[in-house]
Amino acid sequence: MNPGSLDALIDALKCLPGVGPKSAQRMAYHLLQRDRKGAQKLGESLLNALTALRPCARCNTFTEAEVCERCLSPKRDATSLCVVETPVDMNMMEQTQAFNGLYYVLMGRISPLDGQGPTQLGLDKLLKRVDDGVVQEVILATNYTNEGEATAHYLSELLKARGIKVSRIARGIPVGGELEYVDAGTLAQALRERRGIEG
Amino acid sequence: MNPGSLDALIDALKCLPGVGPKSAQRMAYHLLQRDRKGAQKLGESLLNALTALRPCARCNTFTEAEVCERCLSPKRDATSLCVVETPVDMNMMEQTQAFNGLYYVLMGRISPLDGQGPTQLGLDKLLKRVDDGVVQEVILATNYTNEGEATAHYLSELLKARGIKVSRIARGIPVGGELEYVDAGTLAQALRERRGIEG
Ligand SMILES: [Zn+2]
Ligand SMILES: [Zn+2]
Repeated sequence: MNPGSLDALIDALKCLPGVGPKSAQRMAYHLLQRDRKGAQKLGESLLNALTALRPCARCNTFTEAEVCERCLSPKRDATSLCVVETPVDMNMMEQTQAFNGLYYVLMGRISPLDGQGPTQLGLDKLLKRVDDGVVQEVILATNYTNEGEATAHYLSELLKARGIKVSRIARGIPVGGELEYVDAGTLAQALRERRGIEG
Repeated sequence: MNPGSLDALIDALKCLPGVGPKSAQRMAYHLLQRDRKGAQKLGESLLNALTALRPCARCNTFTEAEVCERCLSPKRDATSLCVVETPVDMNMMEQTQAFNGLYYVLMGRISPLDGQGPTQLGLDKLLKRVDDGVVQEVILATNYTNEGEATAHYLSELLKARGIKVSRIARGIPVGGELEYVDAGTLAQALRERRGIEG
């Protein structure tokens, strides 16, 4: 019913997460009719990103070089390595300005339902990274979801077996959080993981 | 914080309707990490569609030729011209299999709030199309929204002044619709526009 190149575009837009046939159609017409410059920019930046970006040889995040700028920075504390699931999580950690070590980005998590086991995560690269003779502590900052927890558990066993000091970011009441509005599971954990008060 | 080509991609994805900074970021990582083939296909089909598609010289919809296949088809009744807002609306009409005439696609509607007046709609092309000496009736099938109604009203005045027979698709209770679940405005219109029963 549509010209081939239009159907091809609508079909290709469906590869975007959360975009079904209806939105793909709406997006295609919007781009062609109202934002041809934006469409041109998007097409070019997609093809450019695909050729320009690759995993950093050290931290596994996307970079245009062999090793990313952060991994090369002499200002970072190379003895502390923080493991996160995604580049977005790494950016969230950076925004806290509470961590000055280096990162390793898993680019995923252990998720048997999605066919993502330890093998698919390519953990050899992490183990090799940790064995650089400089890293002294690995901080596991995967999500506190079931999958993130399973990933953290798996990694901690793996790393502890190699004699590496492993820690996990704390879980509890959010800063500014009122007990009344915190779910029971979080509250129970906060109670179990209570800390002694000094002085 | 991110490499330039990654930031450029995230930024470009924001040109898609309904995609904000958070989804743009999620989409970029998804494409780069999980669907590079899809990303390649999307980039290529965007650039290809931009060069391949243009407005049909007769009906104004997207086509790869000077005049689209439907406009050239000898099987269609060229005396009847149906005016719709978008190519999607045209496809909806086609799916009814209740119309065998030709179309004119406005690629928009009169919408003063969006700065879309009659001038922006390029109605000269429609008037020229209607003046081919073959068209006998123009059926206005714009939406029954305020904007679609305003567009139909404007067009009907314009076309009637040129001595062309103009009609509007009917409004009323949807087929299978129960009065209990139809909004009061629709019901009121269905009452006002009631038809005499033959026989
Ligand atoms: Zn790196
Ligand atoms: Zn046409």
